[in-house]
Amino acid sequence: MSPSISKKKTNHKSAAAKSEAARSAPARKGAATPSKKATTSAKRVFFFGDGRADGNATMKNLLGGKGANLAEMAGIGLPVPPGFTITTEVCAAYDAKTGSYPKGLDGEVSAALARLEKAMGKRFGDAANPLLVSVRSGARASMPGMMDTVLNLGLNDKTVEGLAKASGNERFAWDSYRRFVQMYGDVVMGLKPESAKETDPFEAIIEKKKEKLRIHLDTELTAEHLKELVAEFKAAVRKHAGRPFPTDPNEQLWGAIGAVFRSWTNERANVYRKLNNIPESWGTAVNVQAMVFGNSGSDSATGVAFTRDPSTGEKRFFGEFLVNAQGEDVVAGTRTPQQILKVSSQAWARENEINEKTRAARFPSLEEVMPECSKQLLKAAATLENHYRDMQDLEFTIENGRLWMLQTRNGKRTATSAVRIAVEMEKEGLIDRNTAVLRVAPEQIDQLLHPTIDAKAPKTLFAKGLGASPGAASGRVVFSAEDAVAANANGDKVILVRIETSPEDIAGMDASLGILTAKGGRTSHAAVVARGMGKCCVVGCEVLRVDYKAEHMTANGKTIKAGEWITMDGATGAVYVGQVPTNAAKLSGDFAKLMKWADQARRLHVRTNADTPHDAEVARAFGAEGIGLCRTEHMFFLGDRIDAVREMILATTLEARETALAKLLPYQRKDFAGIFKAMNGLPVTIRLLDPPLHEFLPHTDAEYADLAQKTGIKKSTLEQTGAALHEFNPMLGHRGCRLAITYPEIYAMQTRAIIEAALEVAAKGVKVHPEIMIPLVATARELATLRKLVTDTADAVLAKKKKKLSYTVGTMIEVPRAAITADEIAGCADFFSFGTNDLTQMGFGLSRDDAGRFLPEYVNRGVIDDDPFVTIDQGGVGLLIKIAAEKGRSIKPGLKLGICGEHGGDPRSVAFCHKIGLDYVSCSPYRVPVARLAAAHAALAK
Amino acid sequence: MSPSISKKKTNHKSAAAKSEAARSAPARKGAATPSKKATTSAKRVFFFGDGRADGNATMKNLLGGKGANLAEMAGIGLPVPPGFTITTEVCAAYDAKTGSYPKGLDGEVSAALARLEKAMGKRFGDAANPLLVSVRSGARASMPGMMDTVLNLGLNDKTVEGLAKASGNERFAWDSYRRFVQMYGDVVMGLKPESAKETDPFEAIIEKKKEKLRIHLDTELTAEHLKELVAEFKAAVRKHAGRPFPTDPNEQLWGAIGAVFRSWTNERANVYRKLNNIPESWGTAVNVQAMVFGNSGSDSATGVAFTRDPSTGEKRFFGEFLVNAQGEDVVAGTRTPQQILKVSSQAWARENEINEKTRAARFPSLEEVMPECSKQLLKAAATLENHYRDMQDLEFTIENGRLWMLQTRNGKRTATSAVRIAVEMEKEGLIDRNTAVLRVAPEQIDQLLHPTIDAKAPKTLFAKGLGASPGAASGRVVFSAEDAVAANANGDKVILVRIETSPEDIAGMDASLGILTAKGGRTSHAAVVARGMGKCCVVGCEVLRVDYKAEHMTANGKTIKAGEWITMDGATGAVYVGQVPTNAAKLSGDFAKLMKWADQARRLHVRTNADTPHDAEVARAFGAEGIGLCRTEHMFFLGDRIDAVREMILATTLEARETALAKLLPYQRKDFAGIFKAMNGLPVTIRLLDPPLHEFLPHTDAEYADLAQKTGIKKSTLEQTGAALHEFNPMLGHRGCRLAITYPEIYAMQTRAIIEAALEVAAKGVKVHPEIMIPLVATARELATLRKLVTDTADAVLAKKKKKLSYTVGTMIEVPRAAITADEIAGCADFFSFGTNDLTQMGFGLSRDDAGRFLPEYVNRGVIDDDPFVTIDQGGVGLLIKIAAEKGRSIKPGLKLGICGEHGGDPRSVAFCHKIGLDYVSCSPYRVPVARLAAAHAALAK
Repeated sequence: MSPSISKKKTNHKSAAAKSEAARSAPARKGAATPSKKATTSAKRVFFFGDGRADGNATMKNLLGGKGANLAEMAGIGLPVPPGFTITTEVCAAYDAKTGSYPKGLDGEVSAALARLEKAMGKRFGDAANPLLVSVRSGARASMPGMMDTVLNLGLNDKTVEGLAKASGNERFAWDSYRRFVQMYGDVVMGLKPESAKETDPFEAIIEKKKEKLRIHLDTELTAEHLKELVAEFKAAVRKHAGRPFPTDPNEQLWGAIGAVFRSWTNERANVYRKLNNIPESWGTAVNVQAMVFGNSGSDSATGVAFTRDPSTGEKRFFGEFLVNAQGEDVVAGTRTPQQILKVSSQAWARENEINEKTRAARFPSLEEVMPECSKQLLKAAATLENHYRDMQDLEFTIENGRLWMLQTRNGKRTATSAVRIAVEMEKEGLIDRNTAVLRVAPEQIDQLLHPTIDAKAPKTLFAKGLGASPGAASGRVVFSAEDAVAANANGDKVILVRIETSPEDIAGMDASLGILTAKGGRTSHAAVVARGMGKCCVVGCEVLRVDYKAEHMTANGKTIKAGEWITMDGATGAVYVGQVPTNAAKLSGDFAKLMKWADQARRLHVRTNADTPHDAEVARAFGAEGIGLCRTEHMFFLGDRIDAVREMILATTLEARETALAKLLPYQRKDFAGIFKAMNGLPVTIRLLDPPLHEFLPHTDAEYADLAQKTGIKKSTLEQTGAALHEFNPMLGHRGCRLAITYPEIYAMQTRAIIEAALEVAAKGVKVHPEIMIPLVATARELATLRKLVTDTADAVLAKKKKKLSYTVGTMIEVPRAAITADEIAGCADFFSFGTNDLTQMGFGLSRDDAGRFLPEYVNRGVIDDDPFVTIDQGGVGLLIKIAAEKGRSIKPGLKLGICGEHGGDPRSVAFCHKIGLDYVSCSPYRVPVARLAAAHAALAK
Repeated sequence: MSPSISKKKTNHKSAAAKSEAARSAPARKGAATPSKKATTSAKRVFFFGDGRADGNATMKNLLGGKGANLAEMAGIGLPVPPGFTITTEVCAAYDAKTGSYPKGLDGEVSAALARLEKAMGKRFGDAANPLLVSVRSGARASMPGMMDTVLNLGLNDKTVEGLAKASGNERFAWDSYRRFVQMYGDVVMGLKPESAKETDPFEAIIEKKKEKLRIHLDTELTAEHLKELVAEFKAAVRKHAGRPFPTDPNEQLWGAIGAVFRSWTNERANVYRKLNNIPESWGTAVNVQAMVFGNSGSDSATGVAFTRDPSTGEKRFFGEFLVNAQGEDVVAGTRTPQQILKVSSQAWARENEINEKTRAARFPSLEEVMPECSKQLLKAAATLENHYRDMQDLEFTIENGRLWMLQTRNGKRTATSAVRIAVEMEKEGLIDRNTAVLRVAPEQIDQLLHPTIDAKAPKTLFAKGLGASPGAASGRVVFSAEDAVAANANGDKVILVRIETSPEDIAGMDASLGILTAKGGRTSHAAVVARGMGKCCVVGCEVLRVDYKAEHMTANGKTIKAGEWITMDGATGAVYVGQVPTNAAKLSGDFAKLMKWADQARRLHVRTNADTPHDAEVARAFGAEGIGLCRTEHMFFLGDRIDAVREMILATTLEARETALAKLLPYQRKDFAGIFKAMNGLPVTIRLLDPPLHEFLPHTDAEYADLAQKTGIKKSTLEQTGAALHEFNPMLGHRGCRLAITYPEIYAMQTRAIIEAALEVAAKGVKVHPEIMIPLVATARELATLRKLVTDTADAVLAKKKKKLSYTVGTMIEVPRAAITADEIAGCADFFSFGTNDLTQMGFGLSRDDAGRFLPEYVNRGVIDDDPFVTIDQGGVGLLIKIAAEKGRSIKPGLKLGICGEHGGDPRSVAFCHKIGLDYVSCSPYRVPVARLAAAHAALAK
């Protein structure tokens, strides 16, 4: 960053200084380069290793991520294979057409190379004990696999012999040479397949050779065969490139450096950058590092380790290694890796029923076979964990008895482990509480709240859908809500499978352990309700063909009948055949401690969406601070109530409607009383009736006949009324507050139920804070009209009972028109609750139930970054929320603002809500801890 | 209001001056009151009559509309019954509780009354020849029937005798007295029904009387009976009010004045004001005016007249009168009114086959019976027309041979008449061209473009729906598009009746003279297409029960079978039984002249929505300046094309889809070529495919079978694909540009067809300006992606043909998200066209096809002022447009902006588009003249 500043400030200095400063300015932006005299060039080559380093971890912009981290490790005295980094600025200055570098770079590289030779005690191109290097890219942001790498550089027909001698392994030396020629021929000299459909030319040569030799495995190739291959590879490269394969290691080095710089702008990298918003101007650094070989003899080894247990979080070193092997051998799993600690090795042996003698002979620990290296490794691990103040995931290699640390990074871990490590590190004084909170990803803790599938158990995949509500469940398949209820009554564990669910399936969903649907997205009815119930759910399983009549389902050629077992994973969307063992959810004391710290850190309140006393209790146990959304309509389906609801809907006169409503009143009052009790002392936002009436209609002939009998209205009349309620776009139809403009008596009944319930429980000492919410408001006049209806009704009840009760009346902001006229609407609202689902549907013009057909393609093609139903579309729908919040508060500075809907449990959306100053988010009960932690993260983010 | 202001402002001046200045300030705003010395009170009583007046027409705020106009008429020397106006300021100062008036008011009223007595040559309370007055309200804005009136004030047991003598008609005198007591008793003394369900107490007394007398008609009541009634009325009033009925005319007067002021705040008026946004602070004036009686003998008369023919616009005086009658008798139609001019009288007699002798005896003209009055009347009419420079609608009364002008106002007129009068008045030099343009309401001229129902013809109403596309049509009923096509081929005139229409009915609609649907609103498919075709259409005829199977329809108990005649009026929504004669549309030279003036006045361009060369030609003849919306999908239904379209939709591979698209290409190219030719030299905006694909699917089993045969694809496969395309909310589904994100080949084909067609016609000398429009864009990235697809395709065609062609690529702004992120979107758009239909649907969260069920109730209850699909919801959807226009132009100052959609032909919406600076509106061909005129009005509005 300094040169760009000097450019602005120093217009007196020499021309050379100026042009140099200007050249490097854009690439330097933000890099913490030590300041230089303006008359000398900025440093372009940074050495590391030998216990020292020119750079450090803060210099990512200049050295790239890899270079900065290698410098950091070296700087704290760890045995990193030495090397040097050519800065990202050189990438910008490098002219790919002429292959020319900034003047003087060659001298800097030579100096660094000399230092490297000294550090390794080997010389580049030395026929007796040659130094080999790797040449790798390393950009500011990780771009895995996008750019090129060359390994084993420095080999030629002479040095290969030196390597053979030094390693005592001729085959190893020639195989290394073979690999080098292959990589260099491809990356630097351009011998590669012309299209993705063609075979790699080097692989073709190998295949031909094996065919000729009638062997099948690469390992069967002898040193002699490899020699032949090297010659054949070189000939092919020469033919392709029109020049011989370079033998001079220096020439090889510069060839590789240029190729890595050029690979910054290869097509693959360009596409990746565009998708990830990485500017081309950043450039990549080039890391040249000494090669070390864990496969150069029996005093060599390679391995990986964690400083704490990534699975449980327990503070114990954990690592595995293989003697005379390369990193890829550890990963491949063809050989059984050995434990680093003797105690672990013995435990492993016990687990696998191997006696101590066999273990010590065949699977000894590193402590036993290379005690010195083991000691060094444990020390390095401790140093690194202390240095980074986080659990580290290490890679190391031992070459001829010498330990080299290849890489360290914060280790990936399970949620359980993350929580334990964070809490224990705080206890150890390594980190403070806020850091501990930030160490656990909000999304991650979701797994702690639900049972999970036993990762080690064998399983057969049946189909894969969208994981819509986490958890794991095994059960017998049923295809209807009725069957689910019946089976559950019999004590059977069932999974409800539907093409899609509708509100009348609620009882069946409640009776099932999991729900699987063929259609729908993560915000479909099934998904929303299942999350609310905390039940495992997989939706949008498009390959599934469900045949209700035949009572079976088919996917990928397999058929499962009703009554057969399946197991599903609501996190991944996987559905397995039969019963797969699952692990129950357990919440540790550490978890409670961490959540307490999170609560102390956050500003945003977290409420829950709950429609029943049971949900409300669950949510409260999870830390909910109130109900942000109580949907009154879900209650309408329980038991016999639906009859009264249907009677109300199909009534053709006010009187008939009021008669039906009078039947519903006691039910609603009871429901509300239950919820108020469960939320004693906390606010409860109750949304008045929202869905279009036809959602409650009978579906079958028999249901109509039944209703006709119950109501005494002619079946044909009922059917006609029902048919007349059909809508083309129910989402945009006669629903929400529109119902109450045409049928005020519905909201009047609900208001009465709320107030009467509140008085009833208040009389028993419960503290009640009802917030009555009017949905789908588009204009201020709608709200004014209905606010009057609500307050008139409520005040009449209070006057009649001669009681006082404080209640508020607010509105959902879910129609775009309401958002942009929020200043008008705020005039008659005590609070706004953003209905982000519907606001997304209308603002984006996207039907949640239909978008599944094309939205994935949008995400795949990068036309949008995220499904806007999963995380708030901040630039569009979020902008509407921001505008509404500002306009609303411009009229009422203290206006209470929150969101309800699925986004309330999405960490990124929670962060957005925090940023724009909302007061609370509301989400389904099982997402409450996620939202609490996300709110803390948002508050702690800089 | 005033005192509070005086407190704040004036602490230096004398108290009197201060309070006066402050008091009148707010109410005076805009009133042209002559300025007064600060030490005297502002004038509160304004006299008029006797050829002079204190006020004039500009003083509406102070005198109310009625008072100001009476003053104006008197001021220009017309014989107005004299009187005086107590200003609106007094209303504010009047204390209803104490009944106290501003000090000194009584003196002013007495002075005015004296002047009035002098002007009339009668005295108030004179037993011989009493002056009677009316006391009426008169606010700044007309509030018909909301406030109270007292007539015949000044009558008591003595003056009634004087009136009887003066008029020579005792019964008349007592009936006048009876009416006065009734009105005064009600309005001033409060004897009125307690609720709307009760009978009026006075009427009850009359009924009782008639019962007792065994008579049926009020006219059978004799003077004696009326005397008894007066006594009974007074007794009833006394009993109710607890005080006697006042006999002192002065007391009567002040009682009436107070009652009129109080009626400003009666409940009825309060509600009316709230609904019409009239501030309570305005207040009403009170007009006290001498009564004149057209029914006081055979030398009295009353009548109405127009200065020009309100039906044809011809410059000829036209009027009717009745001898010895009151205004209500003319309106009632129980007596045949006589003509004022002799020539008219004779013409009337000829028309009614009455010979001259009978005419002259029984129906003489005013010219004949009262030649002097007639001359005065004609002179007054000429004076008024010249004064107001517009055709006047007059009311007059002749009392004992003396002419009194009661009222004048600009006369209502037909569209034909409006156009002719405006153009002729310009020619006469009465008004200038811009005024002429402003004289014709844009909405009105629509009738000129369509046939109309003969107003005089007898007719039987069958049902009433919503007038959706104007015009009149008679035809035989058919219930399917196929029957319509077949009947039309046979030369039959038909009306297509459907529950609702869909795109596949297009051919049937084209073959019919009118379309009638039971469902849908004014922007339903039927309505939109019918307007585009200029065909008469009635939609949303909710009482209609259509039985396709039985081939009949029922409404209001009547049944009409297929093949029977109906006649419909697309302007009013009336549907009549049988054939009713209609008048053809005729466009006059005056019309052309007026439209030319309108074109010179407007800034906004007017384009048309046209999908076929024929529509384009019609619109161009109506003055369209380009096509703002050419919907490519309407072309998909013509002839065999639908097969190729269906093949394309149901294709499951890219290859199959491309094969089907290749079949469509030549059709589309041909269509575009035809449209380009028709619009030679004008821009043509073509919208790429927009509707969800399922709109094109087969509906019946037979259609699927047919398609299976044609495509060779299994019927069950086709049906499955079709079923998978079903959507819950198609409005928000897989449509618009979303289709092209998933199937880019569709837009590629359409682009190719556009460019190839443009090159083809350009080669023949046609000037082509294609504007390619991408619908339903929600994000800038969508548009960027598809813009590239379009330009790549277009440029490839041009490169291949080695031609140049300038074309632009823009987008619809119809998704709220697009509107609020228009700055981002503008970056890749050459133009924006606001799709106001969809923007209303999404912005308001209202499905156009479903809103019919509740939107009328919204309008009825005043929750919204207008159907947002009829006129742009300026405060909400309009705000989105305004935001988008500003954001778009903030990035591209010259960005071309227009609207397409139904609002483009709505005058208020056009005015809004002008106001926010759009470049053009686009509407259906038959609305083009309306939009042109509306644009001129908008430009000329201050």
